[in-house]
Amino acid sequence: MTWRADVLTLFPAMFPGPLGESLAGRALRGGVWSLAVTDIRAFGLGRHRAVDDTPFGGGAGMVLRADVLDAAITSVARAARPLVFLTPRGRPLTQARARELAAGPGVVLVCGRFEGFDQRVIDAHGAEELSIGDYVLSGGELPALVLLDSVIRLLPGVMGHEESGLEESHADGLLEYPHFTRPATWQGRDVPEVLTSGNHAAIGKWRLDQARAVTLARRPDLYAHYIASQGPTP
Amino acid sequence: MTWRADVLTLFPAMFPGPLGESLAGRALRGGVWSLAVTDIRAFGLGRHRAVDDTPFGGGAGMVLRADVLDAAITSVARAARPLVFLTPRGRPLTQARARELAAGPGVVLVCGRFEGFDQRVIDAHGAEELSIGDYVLSGGELPALVLLDSVIRLLPGVMGHEESGLEESHADGLLEYPHFTRPATWQGRDVPEVLTSGNHAAIGKWRLDQARAVTLARRPDLYAHYIASQGPTP
Repeated sequence: MTWRADVLTLFPAMFPGPLGESLAGRALRGGVWSLAVTDIRAFGLGRHRAVDDTPFGGGAGMVLRADVLDAAITSVARAARPLVFLTPRGRPLTQARARELAAGPGVVLVCGRFEGFDQRVIDAHGAEELSIGDYVLSGGELPALVLLDSVIRLLPGVMGHEESGLEESHADGLLEYPHFTRPATWQGRDVPEVLTSGNHAAIGKWRLDQARAVTLARRPDLYAHYIASQGPTP
Repeated sequence: MTWRADVLTLFPAMFPGPLGESLAGRALRGGVWSLAVTDIRAFGLGRHRAVDDTPFGGGAGMVLRADVLDAAITSVARAARPLVFLTPRGRPLTQARARELAAGPGVVLVCGRFEGFDQRVIDAHGAEELSIGDYVLSGGELPALVLLDSVIRLLPGVMGHEESGLEESHADGLLEYPHFTRPATWQGRDVPEVLTSGNHAAIGKWRLDQARAVTLARRPDLYAHYIASQGPTP
């Protein structure tokens, strides 16, 4: 079963972009997933194919029109696939949501530009709004590529052995411990001794301590969740 | 002054990718920013140009070697530019960090693949580690493109009037209020009446109420920060 992605955008040339290379590109050519791109401009109005207009109530920026977007959305055979708008107003994309999307038949993604979308088209379609992070981008195209990459690597057969270890690191709710490989000494810096001890219990404890320390330092929000999930200390 | 980006990657063909289009592409061609891509593989060892090895202490995945990465990093004339590793272990990329980077001379970005980087090369260079969100991707290339997009749109002359309104929405620490444009009635759905009232004070209050409501519903974390920043209610 091919996992089907549709992307609606004003910049169709941005796709598949980086997803045409590496793991995702190989999976695309191998039929693990498919990609169809719809140019929203093709549904624009009048001789100039207008897709946006000024916001009611005033303010800077232009808003993508409900009628134009609706025509683009209804041109896609969505079936049971979730419809997702990429927008900084959305709920955060999480690894859990990526896993859910990977378990389904695919996704239909809508990428905005300008100020945003007319809210009525989002409401009318009962669409989901997702954000990839708390920063402002020039459009929803890079977020769509990020969302697709997070899902595609989870599809059956995409990850080989060398990539498969990555999953576990986020599963326990901590940032990852640091990694070291050969040479054992580099520019006077030795690998931490415990890692070459062969003592697996000690290695496991060291890695957990390191993961806790880096999470506490960099992500107090994740650390608080982690501690809460551990239950009372005996 | 051209803002200078260097990217070190095992997949040079992914760049500039989506940043060759739209706002960022125009700014690249116009000399507002420049992009140089270094193939880490060119610094690989031996006949097979090996770049990675198994982790000390065991575990799945392969780790990018300190010596190989160091050779790639020192091949770049970094000058005063920050060196940033894109990794899920990093501190979160924020709009504030994007603004700081935009105010500087540029950035040198290192994209990982496989399990991660040998920590010693990060420590030796005093490098910064940044993450774009709490999900797992197949590599640091899309995060590098996201970081660059967040910065490039802030460079002088990149944003036109139609895009410039986007900034304010995140500045107050709330998600954005919903947008509406013509037609005023679409599929039986009317634009909220207040937005066509011409009463700017009422419009401002409605938008703030909407922004607060969506932030409380979708981002209780941001809402708590927002409330704390408002000080005590008089």
